[in-house]
Amino acid sequence: MRLALHLAAKGMFITSPNPRVGCVIVRGGEVIGEGFTQPAGQAHAEVQALRDAAARGKEVRGATAYVTLEPCSHYGRTPPCADALIAAGLARVVAAISDPNPLVAGQGMAKLQAAGIETTCGVLEQEAREMNIGFLSRMQRGRPWVRMKSAASLDGKTALHNGKSQWITSSEARQDGHWWRARACAILTGSGTVNQDDPQMTVRGIDTPRQPRRIVVDSKLHINPDARILEGGGTWIVTAQPNPEKEALLRERDAEIILLPNAHGKVDLPALMQELGRRQINELHVEAGSRLNGALIADGCVDELLLYLAPSLLGDAMEMFDLPRLDSLEGRRDLTFHEVRQIGPDLRILARFL
Amino acid sequence: MRLALHLAAKGMFITSPNPRVGCVIVRGGEVIGEGFTQPAGQAHAEVQALRDAAARGKEVRGATAYVTLEPCSHYGRTPPCADALIAAGLARVVAAISDPNPLVAGQGMAKLQAAGIETTCGVLEQEAREMNIGFLSRMQRGRPWVRMKSAASLDGKTALHNGKSQWITSSEARQDGHWWRARACAILTGSGTVNQDDPQMTVRGIDTPRQPRRIVVDSKLHINPDARILEGGGTWIVTAQPNPEKEALLRERDAEIILLPNAHGKVDLPALMQELGRRQINELHVEAGSRLNGALIADGCVDELLLYLAPSLLGDAMEMFDLPRLDSLEGRRDLTFHEVRQIGPDLRILARFL
Repeated sequence: MRLALHLAAKGMFITSPNPRVGCVIVRGGEVIGEGFTQPAGQAHAEVQALRDAAARGKEVRGATAYVTLEPCSHYGRTPPCADALIAAGLARVVAAISDPNPLVAGQGMAKLQAAGIETTCGVLEQEAREMNIGFLSRMQRGRPWVRMKSAASLDGKTALHNGKSQWITSSEARQDGHWWRARACAILTGSGTVNQDDPQMTVRGIDTPRQPRRIVVDSKLHINPDARILEGGGTWIVTAQPNPEKEALLRERDAEIILLPNAHGKVDLPALMQELGRRQINELHVEAGSRLNGALIADGCVDELLLYLAPSLLGDAMEMFDLPRLDSLEGRRDLTFHEVRQIGPDLRILARFL
Repeated sequence: MRLALHLAAKGMFITSPNPRVGCVIVRGGEVIGEGFTQPAGQAHAEVQALRDAAARGKEVRGATAYVTLEPCSHYGRTPPCADALIAAGLARVVAAISDPNPLVAGQGMAKLQAAGIETTCGVLEQEAREMNIGFLSRMQRGRPWVRMKSAASLDGKTALHNGKSQWITSSEARQDGHWWRARACAILTGSGTVNQDDPQMTVRGIDTPRQPRRIVVDSKLHINPDARILEGGGTWIVTAQPNPEKEALLRERDAEIILLPNAHGKVDLPALMQELGRRQINELHVEAGSRLNGALIADGCVDELLLYLAPSLLGDAMEMFDLPRLDSLEGRRDLTFHEVRQIGPDLRILARFL
């Protein structure tokens, strides 16, 4: 299963909106087939592993398949993997976790059992959940797993008041940040950041065949139509105010406008998360300014902080999150530290909201 | 030497202003004597180890002594340890580091060599330096090693604007903080903190026979004469303005007044550090508010930050360090992460200024 998870990780940047799955076929203690899920519409891990075994000239009849997610039982863009495993004559299937996709949800394992295959579920469960945290979130909650990235000094400042911020964290930390961008289905930012810094919000320096979707929250449609984030097209712009002229300009740049106002004339952020779930976004990577960051946190839209803290003090400067002043400590937002490690000279902290 | 360092650590709370030293005497692969430095005026580690060997009925002639600091060569409150080792007939002495005390500074090893004892220096040097970081600082720089402790939320806030701060970090983190207080020679705070929070600034919940000296920076002598930090007497109050009446009140509480003004009518913090060096303070533990913290950092008086970060966000609230607004990132204060670990649910970060 450890090897299957390792194989699953090879699909980190390519499988979305499908989950990252790895499969290892073993007989008599020998690994006879390996596979991991390919880009959507292409073969799933199980079929890849069966093909690998065939290519090696190995007999899979009577063998055991280790798979990091319950095999699918339904016809999607590909036929059901459960059927393929049955047809191949596997004796036993071990899954790390069951598939919460309502189209599967235990039916994969049931189908295997009905065909006389011995099944086990719940091996290296925790690791398998982490691997597909976004897919599971979308299946179980209807919205993406939202990871908010920020880079700051040790006293929590992201930039000077005059806007200077290049670079607070190290090149190692920035490179690591691109790895997290690459695994996300989409990168979300605000029009303030777009108009001030004109970021591309692409993955650079990481070998990936797929660029994440870019999304801009822009309540008043203030985005500069020449912004680099529109380059290459496909950017989603989420607004709270229709503006036919501006929208036309943006559509010329192949952007899509999504109208999602709340009662205060701002973008309805929780509704946006539901919409992104519907649009098959598994992991959403947020890199925004303190105001949008604060609004997303205040609205309970953020699952995880990905913080890079540099070993420096900036003093009176810009904050990571613009959150309201509290009257009582009861109002604080609680998290738990999930992982802390050093990246170059900086600290990388993954903390999850409770 | 590993065992000698372990023994030295037993003197963590008691040896100051002397260094923490451990000594192990070995013959034929057998440990025949162990010792560590006792409170000032009592036996040093080497003499303790020789006594231990005698008590065990072991012959030390021809044995090897491992000691975490070069044996002293001068008459202080006790006779020179080098002489004791020579008299005992040791064959070899291995020291972790040489003693930067100008009264020793290589003369201990030289004395041993002159007596025909084989000597080695530089074993587990780094660990031995850390053990006596304050003593070494005082000997080499004439001032204490200054460790500034702060406890904050993940966004760097220590309290709400209405002053509420109990408790941001966990009981585990607070207990750990008392361990760091206990190893310091003195705890320094400001009159603002004293008058607002009325802290005792004592070590509690840690088994120590010695309470650190308490020091209050109080430029205008604003301290409340009933403050708990004066309880038990011996508190040093550092001021920039003479005030005979207030001073008399404070002396009644057995406090000592130290006048150290700078040109701006504030306490001269760098001069204070020199004064504390003269007063044999090895490790100074700072627990102050953002203004004194910021002033100490700005004046280059701080060597190390001891930060406890809780997994929570407080938003618009009090900062750890009140530092001036910068125009350029060149003006930032750079540090390096020395150690990061989880203490209960919190993160403990030791970061050192470059």
